[in-house]
Parts: sequence; structure tokens; C-alpha cells
Amino acid sequence: MKGLWLENNQLQLRTDIPHPEPTLGEALVRVLRAGICNTDLELKRGYYPYTGILGHEFVGVVEQGPEHLLNQRVVGEINVACGYCRFCRSGQPTHCENRTVLGIVNHHGAFADYLCLPVTNLHPVPDNVPTEVATFTEPLAAALEIQQQVALGANDQVLVVGDGKLGQLVAQTIALTGCKLLVVGRHQDKLANLAARGIKTGLAKDVTDKAFDISVECTGNPEGFAIARRALRPRGTLVLKSTYAGNLSLDASSLVVDEITLIGSRCGPFEKALELLATQKVDVKPLIHACYPLTDGIAAFDLAQRRGVLKVLLEMS
Amino acid sequence: MKGLWLENNQLQLRTDIPHPEPTLGEALVRVLRAGICNTDLELKRGYYPYTGILGHEFVGVVEQGPEHLLNQRVVGEINVACGYCRFCRSGQPTHCENRTVLGIVNHHGAFADYLCLPVTNLHPVPDNVPTEVATFTEPLAAALEIQQQVALGANDQVLVVGDGKLGQLVAQTIALTGCKLLVVGRHQDKLANLAARGIKTGLAKDVTDKAFDISVECTGNPEGFAIARRALRPRGTLVLKSTYAGNLSLDASSLVVDEITLIGSRCGPFEKALELLATQKVDVKPLIHACYPLTDGIAAFDLAQRRGVLKVLLEMS
Ligand SMILES: [Zn+2]
Ligand SMILES: [Zn+2]
Ligand SMILES: [Zn+2]
Ligand SMILES: [Zn+2]
Repeated sequence: MKGLWLENNQLQLRTDIPHPEPTLGEALVRVLRAGICNTDLELKRGYYPYTGILGHEFVGVVEQGPEHLLNQRVVGEINVACGYCRFCRSGQPTHCENRTVLGIVNHHGAFADYLCLPVTNLHPVPDNVPTEVATFTEPLAAALEIQQQVALGANDQVLVVGDGKLGQLVAQTIALTGCKLLVVGRHQDKLANLAARGIKTGLAKDVTDKAFDISVECTGNPEGFAIARRALRPRGTLVLKSTYAGNLSLDASSLVVDEITLIGSRCGPFEKALELLATQKVDVKPLIHACYPLTDGIAAFDLAQRRGVLKVLLEMS
Repeated sequence: MKGLWLENNQLQLRTDIPHPEPTLGEALVRVLRAGICNTDLELKRGYYPYTGILGHEFVGVVEQGPEHLLNQRVVGEINVACGYCRFCRSGQPTHCENRTVLGIVNHHGAFADYLCLPVTNLHPVPDNVPTEVATFTEPLAAALEIQQQVALGANDQVLVVGDGKLGQLVAQTIALTGCKLLVVGRHQDKLANLAARGIKTGLAKDVTDKAFDISVECTGNPEGFAIARRALRPRGTLVLKSTYAGNLSLDASSLVVDEITLIGSRCGPFEKALELLATQKVDVKPLIHACYPLTDGIAAFDLAQRRGVLKVLLEMS
């Protein structure tokens, strides 16, 4: 089958990849569409070691699997858990200590004609959710993880730093809580997407120091972190939603003096994400920059890593 | 009057300091005894700018003030709050945005014959608590702040990193919660203090990776931070109890992947600290390394900054 294969920081379109065979408990999924995410770009740059098919944001159709899913459109949770370690047993499969991760750690990903995932990872896509919209389920779930970790009240002043793919989803989900939200970024057109939904937007210079109860860092760069940090009142909470290239240098003493909480945030609830898409409470359409056939995957990656480009999708069949 | 005066990173014993005059709402306190803390050593090294009398851990006697405190032994909270800013109004005076801090920020400290503090900062010392023991009220309250911020349950595996002055107090207070505690340090004699109280102790090499729910960093150095970090299970909490010289460099991506919470912790509840001292649930006596007269204050500082030395006290009268 065809697939985008990463090896030694080189991405290539291969057509000779063996057709995958589902193991016990897995389904075989024919991929319809998949989204390129910053993690894919980072893997390609070699930030983390990975060899194999990239891709973890997808919609597909079950071709082999249990009756209730057969021929259904599905999305899939990306962490493949062992089921028996202490984290699996305590209901935290996304932190399974033996996990593989679709297209990220030891598990072939979604930028291919087919993938395999455990049946328990799959969620049917509601009929009224278009396929290209459903490709945002995984990153939308990640955005919703913030609300699993931090209570956001109507009186909370919340700052989102970053107007990229992740910042847009984080902003839209946080806006639904009714809190007092400001989103800052560097791109007027991207901020305009959010402003059109009634969300207050601005530039870094519009951030009042020590004015926010909660800030969410969605840029993955030290400048974004600095904005999110200085915005916080004492005893405020900074949510780290992005990964960083290399180490981050920070003033730990000021975290102590101001008693700041810093919390890392990763994968979140798929059910809630699908519900928001089905009820159209979140609009992901403005985030789609382009859709390329899988066979133009290399060009799609080149586009996706250009500054200011939002989501680039791949279409498999 | 006499006092230890810091100016341009030079500490000197002065005898010509004007006798302080309490302003409205303040009491005049004759200092009996005071403790040298790491913050004092850092101020002397110039980590933060400060000019004036050092010292913030003290016991004194009220010589001018309201009737109910007159001639009483007192300890005092170190943050002098404005009473009207948004943090004061929300019940967080230790984060007052206009605050001065005894012996640390714009307020003459306790290494002198007399000091002034607002009456509302003062707490009478119970009769059964010896003066030298009561000098530990402020750092003990800071240790107790951890429990104001993080719930410690009987099933929680908790690691304290550091066997110095702060680590000892933190360890003793955390042990009282009944959680599963391990304290690691570098000094067998200091760890023996804790072991004698039934607390499990060890060296850095005894720390199992990803085994602890909560870790408390009490060393203020990057090696201590690294131990506290690697000890945490995914979704664990790292309490930063120490300040750091300069910036701390950390792997922010791993905080995201493991969804770690990092929380800064500073000043805490004096009432609870005094109660623990009065009921002898905490034993600070083994922490006292020496007591010098104020007039030997320079020698006391030299001793206090020697590696492995615990609390050095100053005696005023
Ligand atoms: Zn992703
Ligand atoms: Zn597991
Ligand atoms: Zn201190
Ligand atoms: Zn105030």
C-alpha cells in the first residue's frame, strides 16, 4: 500500500508498504482523510526518534472489525495502551507506561491507505459530521483536556497565547465555558477567525501584566511562554499545551514568589470532541488551509511547515 | 540601636541605627532572638537588591502596641500588606501588590535590637514554647503552605528532596499527614535526625523513577530539581519550595507529555505552625546549630553559609 514513511529525518512516499494485518483486538481501518499536525513536523525535523508511517489525526472506515463498527466512519484515540500496567488499571490509559502511539511511538500512523488500531480506541463519527471536519477530533480532544484539568469559571480571566491550529481550537473550546477570554497572536487573519465568533483578540502588547487567572501557552516557543507567564496574577495557573524544541529556561524563583501553578496538558476526551463537532459548537472549517492527495504528501508537508499556514489535510481515496 | 546592615552586598554591624518609630497600626517589638535563613544568605550575595537591616525569622517582646500584646512574646508574619489592593481584598495578603517584606523588601528586619510590624502581623507565642523554638515559626509556616496547596492523602507516595533547614521542616510536617514519605539528601547526620523520628530516608540513588505522586524540591539547585522531576509519575505534582539563583532550564515537553503539575510555594499559616510547636508535634531543636550574640552577627553569617550547617540563631538581649 501507499504511505508517507519517515526514516532518518527523511520523509518519502512509499508504495511498497506491506498491507497491515490487525492483531487480536485490533480493527483494520481504510483511511479517508488525515491532518498534518505540528507533532508531525517536529518528528520530521528529528525532535523525537521515529521510523515508520507518520500521522495520527484521521478519519477512516472499518474494513475488518466487530459488526457494530464494520463499514462505519471512525476516528481513533492515538495511545495504544497495554491494559494491565498501573496507569491502565487506574483509568489513565493515555499515560500507559507500555504504550505505543499512532504515528508517533512504535505504531504505524495514518498517512497511508490503511492503519490498524485496537477496537477500543475507535469512535464512530456521527452522520452529520463531514469527514474533513471529523479529522479535527483528536486535536479538539486535546484542547478539551484543559477543562479536565483546570476549572474555568465565568469570572475567570483567561488568556490564550497563540493563534495557530492548536490555539484556535483551544480558544473556541474555552470560549464555550463563558469565562472572560482574550486570545493573542501574531496573525490578523487568524485572529479574525476568532473575532468573527465573538472572541476578544489582540496582540502581545495588549496583555496586561498580572491580570489573568489562567493562561494557556499554545505557541511552543519561549516568547509565547514569557507572555503567558507575565500575564498571570499571583497564584495563577499556566497551562502548557505545546511541546518545545529543547529545554525551556525559566525564572523558577518567581514561580515560588508568586506561587504559580504550571500544568502540562496532552490528550483529551474524544466523546466530548465529537459532540462539539456534531452540535456545531466549534467551527473547524476556517482552519482548513488545503487538502492534498496522499500521493502529493511531500508537497503537503512543505506547505504545512510554512509560517502562517493552518491545517493541511491529506485525502487517501 | 545595634543591627546587621546590608548595603552593596556588604554586611556590617552598625551601632548607630536610629531607634525605629512605629507608624499608625504598628507595634514596636524588642527582638529576643532571630534565625538566619537561606534568603538572608542570598540577599547578602546580592541575588535580590536590598539595603537595610536583614532578618525575618524572629521572636520579640512588644514594647509599644495594644494592651493585649504589651510585654507579650510574639512572632510576626513577614509580609506587610496594604489592605486595599485586589489581593488584600481577596484574602491573599501574602501576595499584596504593594507589600513590603520584613528584612527582604523595603522594610527593616529583625537582626537588630528593635523592629516595627503592623499589630495584625503579630501572633503571641504560647507560654510553653521556648523562645529559641518559636524562632522557627516563620519557616515552619512556609513548610505548612504545601498542605494549603496540595492535598496529601494516606496513600500518596511523597518525596522530599533536601535535608537542609527547609527540607527538615517540610519533612516533619508532611510526615504528620500519614502519607508514604521518603526524604533524600546528602548528609547522613541530617537524615539521621529524621530517621530518628521514624521517617524513611535515603540518597538520590534510592529514588525510583516515576514512583511518586508528589515531590517537594527543597534544595534550590538544578540537581535537586532533576531528582524531584524524575521521581514523579505521570500527572504527578512537583512543589517548588526553594528559590533558585538565576534561571532554571527544564524539559517543558516532558511536562506536557507526562501532564506534570509544578507549583510554587512560599509563606504559610502562622497559627498552625505555632500549634505544632506548642503541641510538640514538630521538633526543631536538632536543627539549631549554634546561637551567637547579635554583636557577633558577622561570624554567625560566616558559619551559616558553611555547607552542612543548619540553623544559626542570633540572640539580641
Ligand atoms: Zn497532533
Ligand atoms: Zn498500560
Ligand atoms: Zn526565611
Ligand atoms: Zn495589598
